[in-house]
Amino acid sequence: MASGGPEIEQLIQLLARLPGLGPRSARRAVLQLIKKKQQLMIPLSAALDRAVEAVRTCEVCGNVDTQSPCAICADPRRSESGMLLVVEDVADLWALERAGVGAVKYHVLGGVLSPLDGVGPDDLAIEGLLARAPEFSEIVLAINATVEGQTTAHYITDRLGHGVTKITRLAHGVPVGGELDYLDEGTLSQALKARTAV
Amino acid sequence: MASGGPEIEQLIQLLARLPGLGPRSARRAVLQLIKKKQQLMIPLSAALDRAVEAVRTCEVCGNVDTQSPCAICADPRRSESGMLLVVEDVADLWALERAGVGAVKYHVLGGVLSPLDGVGPDDLAIEGLLARAPEFSEIVLAINATVEGQTTAHYITDRLGHGVTKITRLAHGVPVGGELDYLDEGTLSQALKARTAV
Repeated sequence: MASGGPEIEQLIQLLARLPGLGPRSARRAVLQLIKKKQQLMIPLSAALDRAVEAVRTCEVCGNVDTQSPCAICADPRRSESGMLLVVEDVADLWALERAGVGAVKYHVLGGVLSPLDGVGPDDLAIEGLLARAPEFSEIVLAINATVEGQTTAHYITDRLGHGVTKITRLAHGVPVGGELDYLDEGTLSQALKARTAV
Repeated sequence: MASGGPEIEQLIQLLARLPGLGPRSARRAVLQLIKKKQQLMIPLSAALDRAVEAVRTCEVCGNVDTQSPCAICADPRRSESGMLLVVEDVADLWALERAGVGAVKYHVLGGVLSPLDGVGPDDLAIEGLLARAPEFSEIVLAINATVEGQTTAHYITDRLGHGVTKITRLAHGVPVGGELDYLDEGTLSQALKARTAV
């Protein structure tokens, strides 16, 4: 297999481990990098070097940023709403930020409870959440609507204790732009139950 | 958009320019890199640094390698068959190498003739091919079976001149493992014409 030296092979193998890329697309990516050495390969190399140096996990909320506490935790305007959004991972936090949900703060659990995968409460950032909760007037469980996600949400609700803080979850319903035809029965029945006046 | 500092944003934007990755999957890739900093991010950063330093284009055939002439051009056993495979780009060369086509040499054109995109003969490595051709007993046009590819193959055949060297092209036919049902008429009629005795 003479596709160009150990340096190139190793680069292909590492890129193939990224989500969304397999061995074939990693090879195409490396060829693209080599073809656009000045415009893409060298800038990417430099950006990775900088990110390796700069990126850290926020010790308060678990977000990744170049500072800890992260920009969100350090922003005083984020406290005004009194809302703390509990998310599974950083990707969900970023998704909510892109959606522009407003001046809220976050807490990244780092996963969901999954006895089959050996993930228990101690593997998630639940103690940190319990410690932060009293600072907020509302805890929004923005956890994925999967079985494990809902189990985790129940567990957290129990641990937080009722009455201490207002605990809410994201609404279920028809996605904006979604077609009813393609939705599962669970979503449709929830959407009907939670119907609103027009 | 507070998804973690300019260093992270820039990394996402650069990764999104790789083929097979869009903005969404680039973000997922960056999160994976950050999550696996020791096992993935730092090795990838180092591999890219090394590749930037080491990778060069072979001055003989146009392959990319860490040496020039590349390992294929420098290998004397590669000359024994006397076959020179002419390919559009390095990805095709690598695909043929993976297929284990044997001890052959290659010539990378760097594209195909495409008047609409402003690609003329001078933009391809055709002069280099004409200069190398006399060293070989057979020139195999392993060019994609697209309209532009076939135009390029005709042009090269004309330039090489008839009788000087044996000029061949890859066989058309049913891909191994392919289902007739999904094949276009052109391929099927070529496969019938080129049928072989069992």
